Amino acid sequence: MTLADVATPALVLDSAVLERNCEAMAQRAARHGVALRPHLKTSKSAGVARLATRGQPGGVTVSTVAELDYFASQGFLDLTYAVGISAGKIEALDRIQRRYGAQITLLADQVEAVRAAAARADALGARFAMLIEIDTGGGRGGVAPSDPELLTIARAIQQSDAFTLLGVLTHAGHSYHAPGLEAIQRIAEDERAGAVRAAERLRGQGMEVSVVSVGSTPTAVYATRLDGVTEMRPGVYTFFDLDQQARGVCRMEDIALSVLATVIGHNPRSGRVLIDAGALALSKDRSGDEFRDDLGFGLVCPITGGAPWPGLRVADVHQEHGLLATDGAPQALFDALPIGSRVRILPHHACMTAAPYDRYHVVRGTDQRVNAVWGKARGWVEGA
Amino acid sequence: MTLADVATPALVLDSAVLERNCEAMAQRAARHGVALRPHLKTSKSAGVARLATRGQPGGVTVSTVAELDYFASQGFLDLTYAVGISAGKIEALDRIQRRYGAQITLLADQVEAVRAAAARADALGARFAMLIEIDTGGGRGGVAPSDPELLTIARAIQQSDAFTLLGVLTHAGHSYHAPGLEAIQRIAEDERAGAVRAAERLRGQGMEVSVVSVGSTPTAVYATRLDGVTEMRPGVYTFFDLDQQARGVCRMEDIALSVLATVIGHNPRSGRVLIDAGALALSKDRSGDEFRDDLGFGLVCPITGGAPWPGLRVADVHQEHGLLATDGAPQALFDALPIGSRVRILPHHACMTAAPYDRYHVVRGTDQRVNAVWGKARGWVEGA
Repeated sequence: MTLADVATPALVLDSAVLERNCEAMAQRAARHGVALRPHLKTSKSAGVARLATRGQPGGVTVSTVAELDYFASQGFLDLTYAVGISAGKIEALDRIQRRYGAQITLLADQVEAVRAAAARADALGARFAMLIEIDTGGGRGGVAPSDPELLTIARAIQQSDAFTLLGVLTHAGHSYHAPGLEAIQRIAEDERAGAVRAAERLRGQGMEVSVVSVGSTPTAVYATRLDGVTEMRPGVYTFFDLDQQARGVCRMEDIALSVLATVIGHNPRSGRVLIDAGALALSKDRSGDEFRDDLGFGLVCPITGGAPWPGLRVADVHQEHGLLATDGAPQALFDALPIGSRVRILPHHACMTAAPYDRYHVVRGTDQRVNAVWGKARGWVEGA
Repeated sequence: MTLADVATPALVLDSAVLERNCEAMAQRAARHGVALRPHLKTSKSAGVARLATRGQPGGVTVSTVAELDYFASQGFLDLTYAVGISAGKIEALDRIQRRYGAQITLLADQVEAVRAAAARADALGARFAMLIEIDTGGGRGGVAPSDPELLTIARAIQQSDAFTLLGVLTHAGHSYHAPGLEAIQRIAEDERAGAVRAAERLRGQGMEVSVVSVGSTPTAVYATRLDGVTEMRPGVYTFFDLDQQARGVCRMEDIALSVLATVIGHNPRSGRVLIDAGALALSKDRSGDEFRDDLGFGLVCPITGGAPWPGLRVADVHQEHGLLATDGAPQALFDALPIGSRVRILPHHACMTAAPYDRYHVVRGTDQRVNAVWGKARGWVEGA
C-alpha cells in the first residue's frame, strides 16, 4: 500500500520525524535528570507511545477514560490521569486497573472531590495513587503553591484508605501564549519553582513526596533547569504542528503529522481548489493564528511531504470540504493540483486534528509506502 | 439508566424537540410540494433518520463514505452522496451498493472528475445515478446556472455507460451568513431560481431532468416558494444549535442536542467552574459569534434541559477541560454547581459537536431517564 491507495481523508505520520522528536525530548529529560512521562492525548496511539517511552521508566500520561482503557490494554500499566478526578469515574477506573493489572494515578485540587471519590473507591475496595494539582500560573485548575488549601487537600488524601499521596503535578498551559522564548523560559521557571515549593511545603509537614511533575511542550523544550522536578509530561512534541512552529517551539520540518486529502474540484470563479478534507478532517482549531496570519486552516504539502508550498493554504472549510487558495495565479494552482491528485495538510493543532481518527498511516521521509497502520484510542468511554 | 448514570462527556438528545423539528420541516416540504431528503451529516444516526424521513419517499443525503456504509447497513438504500465525486472513492461506493442493494447518487461539477470516475466504475461494472452541482451563490463547488460547462458535464455523464444523469443539485451555504430573514429569503429564491434555470437548460437540450434539489436549513425554513424544485436537503434543523438560534432560524427551545458534562472543580481565583467537556467534547466551532457575542464555546443548561442559565457560558476550553464563567457572583455559581453535579451544554454547531461521538442518549423533555441509546456513524471510512 502507498499513500495513493489510502482512502481520504486520512492521517499520515512520518516515523523518521516522530523518532527524531522523541529522541530529542528524551535527551532533554536526561540532561535535566528527570523522567519523561509523555502525554499521550496528542497521539492516543500505542505505536507512538512505544517510541516516546523508549529508555524511560515507562509511565505515561492520559486525559480520558478511553485512553486509560486503550493504553492499559496495550501494556502501558503506569498511567497518570491528568484531569481532576470526579467520583463518577471511579468505577470505570477501578475496572481498568483490575482488568489489566494497571496502576492509575489520579489528580485532585478540591477536598470535596477527594472525599467523594474516596467514598466511591472505598465502596469498591479500589486503591489509587494521587497527585495534587498545583496552579503555577495557568489559571485552569490547581491550588496555588502557597495556598493553605494545599495542606487540607493533602490531609484529606492521607485520611482516605483508598488513596496514597505521591506528590504534586502542574501544567503551565499559559506557555502556549508566551510571546517569545524568554517568556517561555520565565514560565518554565515559574512552573518548576511553584511545583517544588508545593512539594517542599508538604515535606515540611512530614509528608513523603516522590513525584514533582511538570508539563507542557514549550516549557519542556526551553526550560533551563529542572532542579527538584522528578518528571516532565510534554505531549504535542511527538508530532509538533503549525501552532508550535508559529510560536518558535519547533521548525516546519519537525511536524510529523499531516492529513492526506484528494483534490475533488477546481473553481475557476473563486480560483480555489476543493479537497475532501474539511472542518471535521482538519478541525477548526486555528491556534497558530495567535503568532502568524498566513496559515488559514492549514498549510499544503506535496504527497511526498517536505516543505509546504509557499503562498498556499486551506483558506476555508465546510464540514467535508476544504478550499485551497494561493497568493499566485489560480491556473498555476489548477495545473499543479489536477483533479484526483493528493496533498498533505499540516494542521494547526495536532491534538485536535488527530483525535477523531481511528488510525495512522505510517510512512518514512519522502517514501510514499505505508510501512504500518497504527491503531489509536478515540472518544471518551471504555472500549471506544 | 438516567442522565446521572451516563459516563461524561456524552451526547444527550431530547426526542420531543427532535420530533417537533422533524415534523415542522416535513410540513414545510409538504406546503412547498417537494420531497424532504434530509442531510444526515448532522446526526449520522439511523434513529434520527427514521424520524426525519417519516412520511417521505425515504431518500437521504450524506457526506462521507462512512455515512453511506452505515446508513445503507441500516436500511436506507436511496442515498445522495453530496460531495463532488473522486475516482478513488468509486470502489468503496460500488462495494456498498452491492453489499446492501443500495442506490447511491453521485455529484459532479467537473468533466475531468466525471471521466475519471466513469473509467473506474466501468472497470468494476458499477452503475450510479448522477447529479450536476450548481453554484447558486455559495461559491464552494458547482457550475454557474448559465455556464456553458453545464452542458459539457451533462454530455460527459450521458456518454458514460456507468452514469445516469438525474438532474441538478445546489447548496446555498452562504445562507448561513445572511444578515436577517429578508436576506435569507433572497438567497432562497436565488437558490431555487438558479437550480431551476440549470434544469431548464438541460431540458432545452432534450435531456430528462427528474431531480432539482436545493439545500440548507436557513433557506428551507424561510423559502417563500419552491416552484420547479423537486426536493430539499436541510440537515441541521433536526437538532438546531446556537448558531441557528443566533441567526434567527430557530428558537432556543428548538435545540434538541446538548453535551452532558460533570463539574470537576471550582477555581476561587478565576471564579470559574471546571467541567469535563472541553475542546474535543464541545468542538472549538464558534459559528454563532457572527451574530451574538455572549455564547462563549456554548451555553449552560440544567441537567433537566430547559432554558440556559442567564449570564453563564463556557468561557474557555482546553482539550478535555471546559471553564464556565458567569456575569454574576462566582460564589453563587459554585453553590449552584457543586463538585460532581452535572450540566448540559448547548453547542454552537451541532454537526461539529456530534461528529466524534459514538452514540446519543435519548431523553424526553425534563425527564432524566434515558429511553434509548442510538448508535451513529463517525469517521470517514467503511465500517468505522
